[in-house]
Amino acid sequence: MKNLGYYNGVYGPIEEMTVPMNDRVHYFGDGVYDATCCRNGVIFLADEHIDRFFNSAGLIRMRLPYSKPELKAILQEMVEKVEGKDLFLYWQATRGTAPRAHAFPPEDVPANLMITVNPAPARDLKKRIALTSMEDTRFLHCNIKTLNLLPSVMAAQKASEHGCYETVFHRGEIVTECSHSNVSILKDGVLKTHPNDHFILPGIAKAHLIKACRALNVPVDEAPFTLDELRAADEVLVTSSSVFCLIADTLEGRPVGGRAPELADRLQEAVLAEFRAACGD
Amino acid sequence: MKNLGYYNGVYGPIEEMTVPMNDRVHYFGDGVYDATCCRNGVIFLADEHIDRFFNSAGLIRMRLPYSKPELKAILQEMVEKVEGKDLFLYWQATRGTAPRAHAFPPEDVPANLMITVNPAPARDLKKRIALTSMEDTRFLHCNIKTLNLLPSVMAAQKASEHGCYETVFHRGEIVTECSHSNVSILKDGVLKTHPNDHFILPGIAKAHLIKACRALNVPVDEAPFTLDELRAADEVLVTSSSVFCLIADTLEGRPVGGRAPELADRLQEAVLAEFRAACGD
Repeated sequence: MKNLGYYNGVYGPIEEMTVPMNDRVHYFGDGVYDATCCRNGVIFLADEHIDRFFNSAGLIRMRLPYSKPELKAILQEMVEKVEGKDLFLYWQATRGTAPRAHAFPPEDVPANLMITVNPAPARDLKKRIALTSMEDTRFLHCNIKTLNLLPSVMAAQKASEHGCYETVFHRGEIVTECSHSNVSILKDGVLKTHPNDHFILPGIAKAHLIKACRALNVPVDEAPFTLDELRAADEVLVTSSSVFCLIADTLEGRPVGGRAPELADRLQEAVLAEFRAACGD
Repeated sequence: MKNLGYYNGVYGPIEEMTVPMNDRVHYFGDGVYDATCCRNGVIFLADEHIDRFFNSAGLIRMRLPYSKPELKAILQEMVEKVEGKDLFLYWQATRGTAPRAHAFPPEDVPANLMITVNPAPARDLKKRIALTSMEDTRFLHCNIKTLNLLPSVMAAQKASEHGCYETVFHRGEIVTECSHSNVSILKDGVLKTHPNDHFILPGIAKAHLIKACRALNVPVDEAPFTLDELRAADEVLVTSSSVFCLIADTLEGRPVGGRAPELADRLQEAVLAEFRAACGD
């Protein structure tokens, strides 16, 4: 198989898979998801991603009809069916199938599980990336990895139209995160990154960047920073579960970072080394 | 047919209909919708709902591959296939079918159209309703009728668990709207209702309540009001396209309104009379 889709126990090529019309995802985006890279059949940081997925479900009061080990076994089985060394594994749960009504369906309606496995897109992780920015007008539940992602769609489209990799969200002057990544800065040898609260997703790649900082004796300041601080940063780091850690060199077409390339590269390398140690070269 | 689902030209009983896994609704809730009542085969305020639908699509930069008259003809055809005098017609468009990526798919990927027609739930519109309330933590695009409705789901569930019809959203002290309705108050003979901005949906039932006020020489003040003003209101009116205009008598279990029942009933009756004039008894 080149790719594989799964829905409640049925699987096949994603292009041939379908979802019942009354799945509440259609009417409300009523669900949560998670995703991670796989290499050589190993799901990178599987337990952390599964923990976050269960946490997201709990935060929207959705009960999942399987245990963490059961889900992990299903995900592993899916990954093993797909060809290729580097894969991207995505899964989501929605609050069941029922006629449209905003309030939850009856308790005996189980959540639906959907999974996709695709080849991981190739990307030169060493290449510096361009950023644009926009006001963060999202809801106040950005800590939950929900399927309500329209503002992220609009922001990612802006990045695409401006020839950028990502759009930096800011609430007023405070930088929060990007459309599908976290963003951190290096300044005077310190990593500064938005604390985990309801304004940002608790990024697993960000957590591992922080871990790499600790291992390399780079102090970490989990505090909000401003757009001006980002513009004046020594380096700007963009992290996500699909690309680990990228280094930015422009914001709105003007240069940013580039003043501590050795440290930025060491941190990126440490993050990638952890991936290789877990999943192989 | 007792109910009918439609997806890109294919139709059948809703329970048998499916949607491709790569429809962007699954990954992002990337779409908009609208809905209205039908009686005796007449779609109530069809043009206003279709106008709002196209406006919602425009606000998320989604091109619809049909004209307003073409959509209206498809909706009318669907309604005529379903048995029953009173029906509820719902339709949505999503930003096409494509492998998961946040930014828009290529321009040649057409939007998907999904429609459902169901029997309208019976409801005693004269019965006073109970309200609860919660902080409005939604995004700043509530003027767009999108499929990103998780906060509304959570709010509607709170109403359900408290034995209430609706949850009143408030941003701090300012009342915005409800989970799937607008809310207005009567005080000293004046209707006060939140202005149409990015904090609320521009409700069509609300617009027709305002029209009824004008016809009955009831002054209208389109201005934000507070929770305290709602608690002290003479009457509290909750409007939506499914139930037109309901009158509330409690908030959080404490009495509200009930001080201008004659005026409230006259306004409700005027709104219902417009429906009967358009669609019959």
